[in-house]
Amino acid sequence: MNEERTYKMTLAYDGTDFAGWQVQPDQPTIQGALQAALKRITGEVRSVIGSGRTDAGVHAYGQVASFRSCTEIPTRRLHRALNAQTPETIQILELEQVDSEFHALASAKRKRYRYVIHDGSHPDVFHLRTSWHIHRRLDDTLIQQSAQLLTGTHDFSSFESQGAPRKTSIRTVYDFQITRAGDFVWFEVEANGFLYNMVRSLVGTIERVGRGKESIEWPFEVLQAKDRNVAGPTAPAQGLFLLWVHY
Amino acid sequence: MNEERTYKMTLAYDGTDFAGWQVQPDQPTIQGALQAALKRITGEVRSVIGSGRTDAGVHAYGQVASFRSCTEIPTRRLHRALNAQTPETIQILELEQVDSEFHALASAKRKRYRYVIHDGSHPDVFHLRTSWHIHRRLDDTLIQQSAQLLTGTHDFSSFESQGAPRKTSIRTVYDFQITRAGDFVWFEVEANGFLYNMVRSLVGTIERVGRGKESIEWPFEVLQAKDRNVAGPTAPAQGLFLLWVHY
Repeated sequence: MNEERTYKMTLAYDGTDFAGWQVQPDQPTIQGALQAALKRITGEVRSVIGSGRTDAGVHAYGQVASFRSCTEIPTRRLHRALNAQTPETIQILELEQVDSEFHALASAKRKRYRYVIHDGSHPDVFHLRTSWHIHRRLDDTLIQQSAQLLTGTHDFSSFESQGAPRKTSIRTVYDFQITRAGDFVWFEVEANGFLYNMVRSLVGTIERVGRGKESIEWPFEVLQAKDRNVAGPTAPAQGLFLLWVHY
Repeated sequence: MNEERTYKMTLAYDGTDFAGWQVQPDQPTIQGALQAALKRITGEVRSVIGSGRTDAGVHAYGQVASFRSCTEIPTRRLHRALNAQTPETIQILELEQVDSEFHALASAKRKRYRYVIHDGSHPDVFHLRTSWHIHRRLDDTLIQQSAQLLTGTHDFSSFESQGAPRKTSIRTVYDFQITRAGDFVWFEVEANGFLYNMVRSLVGTIERVGRGKESIEWPFEVLQAKDRNVAGPTAPAQGLFLLWVHY
């Protein structure tokens, strides 16, 4: 019996054609594709644990996952084999052996997400899968001011969808940056953790400020209400990217 | 009977899911989608003439097409209706009435194409449909020098694929610019006209200079040979974009 080792992988994926991260019967998922590839390569049935689940259509530039294996295949070869055995829309960027205590979900300390809105007069045919197109031009100065009010440590339960109950809905947002490049507006949020659909709820709420329907202070009032029903809609999945996870 | 008018449209499309520009039975094509939309809106069966055909998988930021119609629908409403009746991956950016002499193919004076190579160590999952990934890093200084030798008026028959015979294979290349942005290299070629597969053949040839397999002068020697067999391979369709057409 070989020794069991712990591996950490960093991966990018285009979430368009997947039913999200988590394994589901008869549906293509990121976790499912990785576990199937591992089984073909090593013969072992193993869980690949992500730093968090991403929903159907959500993308990643730098998702992190961990798994254990007794394989004797050298890490560089295992890395190449995993890329060869997974769909082209999943790319494992790094694979390394790590301390056996490492757990991609439990050890995560900080994450950053980007949400992309496209507000050009026509949808951009090359960004349909990777942005939310809205017809009204957003005022990114208003959005930036509004976003600043939400940084810090707060109870974000107004921005949490039903589904995955957590011990606490208090999170610390370290940074919330709005950047415009041409017809694209990037919302980048960095925090010590995220509630279910938190970034998409924040974007769906703050977007209303950007088109002048609500005041700069309104999203902060939503936060204080601790009531999901007063927030804006959840922005669509295809604009969301997990940028990185720190440990 | 209403008066017949001539229309010019400027359109963008993601060519991935189309069998090219030209109508083909039982295949999705750009021209087919536009003609079907026109028929649904106006009841007329009309030819939509492009500035040139694009192959399967080739994209456009600013293709130009013309058609005639006796419709009484105001141009702004016709524009909206065409966008509503075509797939999301085709966007008509502009529609205007023009002089009856205008013909998108015959009147074209100058065009510019971009070809995108991605030479990062891993394929970029968000640019699989819109670039050619190569594993070896290209030297863009060598490529730029090599491309400069091909500007001017020449017989480009070495860079013409079989298929569409033309009266002459002499063309004038006004500009051939290489630009690197991170792991992406853009090849932009502007000319008074292009032979079949000309940009893709130029890129497939010059790419060999960029990875050190051929000298800076070699593409110019290929040009002088007037023989398709000595040129490099035709670069894949998905990296090519028609940027604009001038009249």
